[in-house]
Amino acid sequence: MLYQPGRHFLQLPGPTNSPLAVLQALALPTIDHRGPQFGQLVRGLLSDLKAIFKTTEPVIIYTASGTGAWEAALANTLSPGDRVLMYETGQFATLWRSIAQQLGLQPEFIAGDWRSGLDAAAIGAHLASDARHQIKAVAVVHNETSTGALSDIAAVRKAIDAAHHPALLLVDTVSSLAAVDYRHDEWGVDVTISGSQKGLMLPPGLSFNALSKKALAASKQARLPRSYWDWEGMLAANKSGYFPYTPNTNLLQALRVAIDLLQAEGLDRVFSRHARAAEATRRCVRHWGLDIQCRVERQHSPVLTGVIMPAGFSADKLRAHILAQCNMSLGAGLGKLADKIFRIGHIGDFHDMIVTAALTGVEMGLTSLGVPHRSGGIGAAMEYLSAQAAAAAA
Amino acid sequence: MLYQPGRHFLQLPGPTNSPLAVLQALALPTIDHRGPQFGQLVRGLLSDLKAIFKTTEPVIIYTASGTGAWEAALANTLSPGDRVLMYETGQFATLWRSIAQQLGLQPEFIAGDWRSGLDAAAIGAHLASDARHQIKAVAVVHNETSTGALSDIAAVRKAIDAAHHPALLLVDTVSSLAAVDYRHDEWGVDVTISGSQKGLMLPPGLSFNALSKKALAASKQARLPRSYWDWEGMLAANKSGYFPYTPNTNLLQALRVAIDLLQAEGLDRVFSRHARAAEATRRCVRHWGLDIQCRVERQHSPVLTGVIMPAGFSADKLRAHILAQCNMSLGAGLGKLADKIFRIGHIGDFHDMIVTAALTGVEMGLTSLGVPHRSGGIGAAMEYLSAQAAAAAA
Amino acid sequence: MLYQPGRHFLQLPGPTNSPLAVLQALALPTIDHRGPQFGQLVRGLLSDLKAIFKTTEPVIIYTASGTGAWEAALANTLSPGDRVLMYETGQFATLWRSIAQQLGLQPEFIAGDWRSGLDAAAIGAHLASDARHQIKAVAVVHNETSTGALSDIAAVRKAIDAAHHPALLLVDTVSSLAAVDYRHDEWGVDVTISGSQKGLMLPPGLSFNALSKKALAASKQARLPRSYWDWEGMLAANKSGYFPYTPNTNLLQALRVAIDLLQAEGLDRVFSRHARAAEATRRCVRHWGLDIQCRVERQHSPVLTGVIMPAGFSADKLRAHILAQCNMSLGAGLGKLADKIFRIGHIGDFHDMIVTAALTGVEMGLTSLGVPHRSGGIGAAMEYLSAQAAAAAA
Amino acid sequence: MLYQPGRHFLQLPGPTNSPLAVLQALALPTIDHRGPQFGQLVRGLLSDLKAIFKTTEPVIIYTASGTGAWEAALANTLSPGDRVLMYETGQFATLWRSIAQQLGLQPEFIAGDWRSGLDAAAIGAHLASDARHQIKAVAVVHNETSTGALSDIAAVRKAIDAAHHPALLLVDTVSSLAAVDYRHDEWGVDVTISGSQKGLMLPPGLSFNALSKKALAASKQARLPRSYWDWEGMLAANKSGYFPYTPNTNLLQALRVAIDLLQAEGLDRVFSRHARAAEATRRCVRHWGLDIQCRVERQHSPVLTGVIMPAGFSADKLRAHILAQCNMSLGAGLGKLADKIFRIGHIGDFHDMIVTAALTGVEMGLTSLGVPHRSGGIGAAMEYLSAQAAAAAA
Repeated sequence: MLYQPGRHFLQLPGPTNSPLAVLQALALPTIDHRGPQFGQLVRGLLSDLKAIFKTTEPVIIYTASGTGAWEAALANTLSPGDRVLMYETGQFATLWRSIAQQLGLQPEFIAGDWRSGLDAAAIGAHLASDARHQIKAVAVVHNETSTGALSDIAAVRKAIDAAHHPALLLVDTVSSLAAVDYRHDEWGVDVTISGSQKGLMLPPGLSFNALSKKALAASKQARLPRSYWDWEGMLAANKSGYFPYTPNTNLLQALRVAIDLLQAEGLDRVFSRHARAAEATRRCVRHWGLDIQCRVERQHSPVLTGVIMPAGFSADKLRAHILAQCNMSLGAGLGKLADKIFRIGHIGDFHDMIVTAALTGVEMGLTSLGVPHRSGGIGAAMEYLSAQAAAAAA
Repeated sequence: MLYQPGRHFLQLPGPTNSPLAVLQALALPTIDHRGPQFGQLVRGLLSDLKAIFKTTEPVIIYTASGTGAWEAALANTLSPGDRVLMYETGQFATLWRSIAQQLGLQPEFIAGDWRSGLDAAAIGAHLASDARHQIKAVAVVHNETSTGALSDIAAVRKAIDAAHHPALLLVDTVSSLAAVDYRHDEWGVDVTISGSQKGLMLPPGLSFNALSKKALAASKQARLPRSYWDWEGMLAANKSGYFPYTPNTNLLQALRVAIDLLQAEGLDRVFSRHARAAEATRRCVRHWGLDIQCRVERQHSPVLTGVIMPAGFSADKLRAHILAQCNMSLGAGLGKLADKIFRIGHIGDFHDMIVTAALTGVEMGLTSLGVPHRSGGIGAAMEYLSAQAAAAAA
Repeated sequence: MLYQPGRHFLQLPGPTNSPLAVLQALALPTIDHRGPQFGQLVRGLLSDLKAIFKTTEPVIIYTASGTGAWEAALANTLSPGDRVLMYETGQFATLWRSIAQQLGLQPEFIAGDWRSGLDAAAIGAHLASDARHQIKAVAVVHNETSTGALSDIAAVRKAIDAAHHPALLLVDTVSSLAAVDYRHDEWGVDVTISGSQKGLMLPPGLSFNALSKKALAASKQARLPRSYWDWEGMLAANKSGYFPYTPNTNLLQALRVAIDLLQAEGLDRVFSRHARAAEATRRCVRHWGLDIQCRVERQHSPVLTGVIMPAGFSADKLRAHILAQCNMSLGAGLGKLADKIFRIGHIGDFHDMIVTAALTGVEMGLTSLGVPHRSGGIGAAMEYLSAQAAAAAA
Repeated sequence: MLYQPGRHFLQLPGPTNSPLAVLQALALPTIDHRGPQFGQLVRGLLSDLKAIFKTTEPVIIYTASGTGAWEAALANTLSPGDRVLMYETGQFATLWRSIAQQLGLQPEFIAGDWRSGLDAAAIGAHLASDARHQIKAVAVVHNETSTGALSDIAAVRKAIDAAHHPALLLVDTVSSLAAVDYRHDEWGVDVTISGSQKGLMLPPGLSFNALSKKALAASKQARLPRSYWDWEGMLAANKSGYFPYTPNTNLLQALRVAIDLLQAEGLDRVFSRHARAAEATRRCVRHWGLDIQCRVERQHSPVLTGVIMPAGFSADKLRAHILAQCNMSLGAGLGKLADKIFRIGHIGDFHDMIVTAALTGVEMGLTSLGVPHRSGGIGAAMEYLSAQAAAAAA
C-alpha cells in the first residue's frame, strides 16, 4: 500500500480528533488501579465531570461504548415491561429504542421525519394521555448525530411537568456534551448519557451516566437484572476513588488531560467555537446550493452538518474520493439515509482553519466528481469567520 | 509532590507493563470506525485471535472490562433461574458467582480453601448427582488471580463428559490467556472469557468471549435479557470487520501490535518464559522462608506468586514501602486475604532481569521493615535463571 | 495562557510538519550507540541516503544544524585564503558567504536581486576570467529558502566545465532534498549539503555532506583546521556503522522511518506532490493580486512561495494574526525582506487539503486585517487541484 | 529476528535512560524556531541552565554532540599554536587532546594510569615551570567516563592560582553535570563543557559551554577560525531567546521537561541518589571479588563503575551474553581497556531497584559464563540500600 502523506482529518461527528496531549496521556504506562495515585486521579475526575454535566449529583464512568451507557440508564431505572416514551429523531434514537426492546421494555415511539429535532409539545400530549402513569420514562436524544438536529431538552422537562407526569427524563448527550451548552440539573434531567469520543476529545471506550436524586431512588425499585451497569456497587467504590472492577485506566489518565484542556479554554468559549464553525459550514453548503438534512433553523446542530447529495449522486462515492485525495474521513449517512447524505463533523479539537480546510476538501471532491454545485462556498465560510475574528480582535 | 525517578515497575498480576510499541499504537490518532482501514484491521484481529485462544470458532471483542465478558458469557447462554455450577478458587470465582446471582441465575458454589485450584472430581461428582440436568453450565476460573492457583480445565471437561452431563463449560482465562498454554477447542470449552490487560499486554478496556458451536446454539434459546453483550448482532457486524456500535478503536490498533509481538516471540516461548519466571520466584520465596499462598505444587500459577506475610506483619505496609523506595507496585491481598498476602506478578512483557529486579525490591522491603526472612533468596532465583540461560545458549 | 485548540499548522519552508510515525520513532528509548542494533541501523541509513542524494559515493551524517554542514563542506575541501565563488540568491547564500569569511576564506560574491535564482552564465564568465584557477570552489544554493527561487545546478556544472575550470562544486540543498528532484552524481556536484528538517520531514538536528571522489581527494590537501567536521574519521567509523563520537541516536532512529515513508510513497510522487502544491499556491496568490517574490517563472520553488505584502502593510502583523486565529505559522521575511514578505511552506508531509487549508488561513488573515486583495483565490487553487485529482483518478 | 520482551535497560554511563515525559516532549510537533513560543522557551532554558552549572554567567547551547562542545571551548579561547595543559585520566581526556592537536594547538599531556583521577599537584608543578606563561589553558575532565574516576576541580583551580598562572581552566563535565555536585563559579572554571545525554537525561544531540568573564574576554583575542561554534553570534541571538541558525527545537522542548524533573526532585537529592547507587554497586563488585578500575577510594565516580574482568575472560562476551539474556546494555571498555573491563552506568533516571536489577543481570551473566566470582554480591548491595532506605524513612 502507498503511504498517504499528511495528517488525516477525522471530520466525523465522532470519534473526533484527539489533541496530542490527550493521546500522549493515553500512552502513559498503565498504573495500579488499586494504588494511591489512581484513587487521587479518579476523585478529581469524578468531581470535575460534574461541572461538565452541570450537575451536583454523581456521575458514573463506564468502561464501555456510549451504547453501554444507554443500556445502563434503562437497566438501573426500569423494570421488565415498563413503558418508555421515545422520539424518532433519527438513527440513534431508533437504536436506543431497539435496546429498550431487547431489555424487555415497551418503548412507545413518536414518529419523526429525521429532518428535525423533537417536538416537546407532542411529548407533553402523549404524557397527558397516559392518565395511569404507565410510562415510566421519557428517553430522548439531545443532539441526533445521524441528522444534525439539536433538541430543546428544557422544553421536554417543561412538557413533562405541565402534564403533571412522574416519568423520569433520560437524555442522550453522546455527541453534544462538552461541545454544546447542556445543563443536567437546571433542565431537570434524571439520567444523562454520554461518551468519551466526541466533545470530550478522547478515543471511544468510556461512557457516562449523570444521575439525579430521583433516578437514584428509582434504581432502588428497578428490577431489570444488571451487574456490569449497576450504579450501586459503582457509587460505593467511587466514594474512595476506585472501581468495582478494573476500568480503562489509560483512558481515565487521558480524560484528566482532556478536562484540563476544556477548563483552560473555558466551556463557553468551547461552545461558541462550535457554534461559529457550524454557521460557517452552513453558509458554505447553502452557497453550494446543497440541502442541509436538518430543515428547522433553530435546531441546527453546532457539532455536525448533514448534507444531502443531489439526486443521482452517491454520497459514499464522494466520501471515498475525498478520503483518497484529501486524507479526510466524513460521516456516512446512516440507516435510511445511507449513501444519500454525508455528514461534516465540526466537533472536538479544531480551529477556524480546520473548518475551512474540511470545506475545501468537500468542494474539491464535488468538483472532481462533477457533482452540481455553485463554486465559491468556501468564500462564504471564510467571510463569516474573518468577520468574527476581526470582531473578536477589536 | 516530589518526582519519583526511574521507571515504574507494575508487577501486578494485571494490568501488566505494556510494551512501548503497544502504547505508541494506542496513541495513534483515532480512525474512522466505519472506514476501509478499520474493517481491514478488525478482520485481521478476529482471525489472529483464534490462534491465541486455539479455536476455529468466532471470538468476540467487547469494549469493556473483563467483568463485562463474564456477564456476557452468562447472559448469552442462560435463562433466568438457571443453575450454574461454580467453584470457589478465590476472590475472582466469588465475584463471578455474585454476577450470576445479580443476573437472576442460581449458582451452586463448591467450597474451596483459596489455597489451591479446582478439584475436577468434585465437579464430576456434583454433576453426577444432577440426574435431571438442571445445571446448565459449569463456570470456572483457569488461573485464579487472587491466589495464584492454576486449574486443569481439560480435567473439568473430562469430568463433565464422564458424568454424561450436557452442561456448558465456561472458563475465565482473564489472567492466563497468552501467558499460559490454553486450548479452547481441544479442551472442549464452550465459552472462554478473557481480557486485554494481562498476557495480551494491553491496558484494560477490551474483553473477549471465544465461542463453541454448542454455545452458539444455546444462545438461540437463552432468555436472559441482553443488548450490549448480545453475540448475534456482534457476529453479524463482525463478518465484514465492523461493530454494531463504536468500539474502542485505539485499543484495537494496539491489539494489532500486541498480537504481532506475541507472534514474533512465539506462543511457546512466551509460555516457557512465564513458567521460568514463576519457578525462579518460588525458589526465592522459599529461600526467604515465606509461605506461598497456593499450596498444591502442580497448581502453582505461572503468572503470579501469592506470598503470605508472617503473622503480625502487614502486607499492605510492605507494599507501600516498596512503592516508595523502589517505584514498584505489587498486587494486594483481595477479599479475605486483604493485608495478609501480597502478590508478585510475572506476566506480560518482561525478561529474566525484570523478575530478579522485582525480587530484589521485595527483599529490600522485607529487610527495611524488619520482616523476618532468610536473606539471599535472590541468589536462589538467579542460580536457576542462569542455569536456564546457560542451557538455552548451549 | 489560553489553550489554543486544534492542530498547529507549521507552514514554514522548514522545519516542516513531521509525520507522527517519525515523531514516535524519535521518542523511542535511546539505544546503545556502540551496540549491534545501532550498527545495523546506521549501515542501512548510510546506504539508503545515497538513493536520496542520487549518488554512489559516501554520505556523511552530522549531529548539527544545516549550518554546520555548510562549514563542513568548506573546512574539508579548502585551505586558509582560498577563493570561493558564491552567488547572492538571497539570505541563505549571504549567510554561507559569512561563514566562508569567518573561516578565513575569500568569497567572491556575484550580486543578485533576491527575486531570482542564479545565472549560470555569470558563473561561467567569472570562472573564465580566473585564468590562474585561484578560485577553488563554486558554492551555490539549490533552493533559496528566503525567496523561493530554485536554481539550475546542472547548468552550473556545465558552465564550470565549459570554462575548463577545476573548481569544486558545492551545493546547498537544505530546503530541496527529498522534495525536489536532485542528482548529485549526474549533475557533477562535489559536495552536497543538506539538513533533516525540510523534505526529510524530521526535526532539526542532523545535517549531511554527500561527497564526490574529487571532493575526497581535495580533503587530503585541504588545510583548514577541522575536527568535529572532519570527513576522514567519520568515514573510517561509518564503515562498520558507527561514529567517532556519540551522534543523535534518536534522530537516526527517526530518519529510518522518514526514509521508509519516502520510499513507500516513491520519490517521483513526492516531487510531483510538491510541484502541484506550488502551482496551486501561485494560482491562488496571483488571483489575490499579490506579487510573488521570485519573478522568474522557470525558477519558482516547488517548496515555498514568497508573497510580497502590499505597500503599507506589515507581513509580520499578518503572520501574528494568522497564528492567533488559525494556529498556523508562516515563514517570515528574512534579512532585507523582513516584514515585507511572508513565505508559505508547502514542503514535507502534506496533502492537497493541507495546501488549501493554509491558503484559506492566509485569505482569512488578509480579510480580517483589511489587506487589499481579490477574494476567491482559494477557488483558483481548488480548481487546479481538483482537475489534477480527476486526471489522476481517470 | 525474535522479539526480545521487556524493557531495555540502558545501563551505560551515557546515553542514559530518558524519562518518558522527556521522550514525549521530544516527540511534540516541531515549533517555529522564530515564533513567540520558541523565544519564551529558550529564555527560560538559558536562565534555568545557569542553576544547573551553578553559574551566573551565560550558558551556550549547541546542536551538536559533546565532542563539538570540546572543540567550541578550545576554538573560542585559543589561537593557533597555543599550548594547552591536559591530563591523561583516560580515553576521553585522550580524545580531547587529539582534538586540540587537530585544531593546531600544542597540548602538553600529563601521563596518567587510567586508574585514577587527576593529580592537582602535578598540574601545579607543571604550571610553575612555565615561567613565561606559554600555557594558555588547562583542560581537564571532571568525571572520566572511560574509567570511572572523578577529579577534584576545585583543587585544580587552587593549584593554578598557587602557581600564579593566568591559564584558563576548561573542564569537561559531560558525564557529571546534573549527577554530581559541580560548581562552575565557585571553583573558578572558565569554560565548562557538557552534553545532554547523561545526567540531563536527554538523548544525545545538545551540548553546552558555560562561560566566565575571563573566557569571554579571551574569546575577543582568540584567533582560531570558528563559525558554528562562535560564542559572539550565539550570545547576541540568545539575548532575545533565538539562535543564529536553526537549533534542535525538539531537544530544547525535551530539555524543558528534563530541567523541570531535576528541579522537582532537587539537585541535592539527585546527587545523593547517584552516590548511593555507586556505593551499592562497589559493595557488590567487591563482594564478587572483582577489581574496580578506579583504584583511588576518594575518586570513585558516582555515575559509573568500571569492573575489571578476571584474566582470560572477555568483557565483551559477557556484555553480549547479558544483552541477550537480560536485555541490558553495559558500557564497553574503551581504547586500551577494550574487552578488559565493562562499565556499569548508574546515572540519570533510576531508582534503587534499577541498580539492584542491573547487578542481578551482571551476576547472572558471570554465573552463566563461568566467570569466577563469589556469589551473593547483590546481597551486599541490597543490605546497604535497605539500610539507607530505613534511615531515610526514620
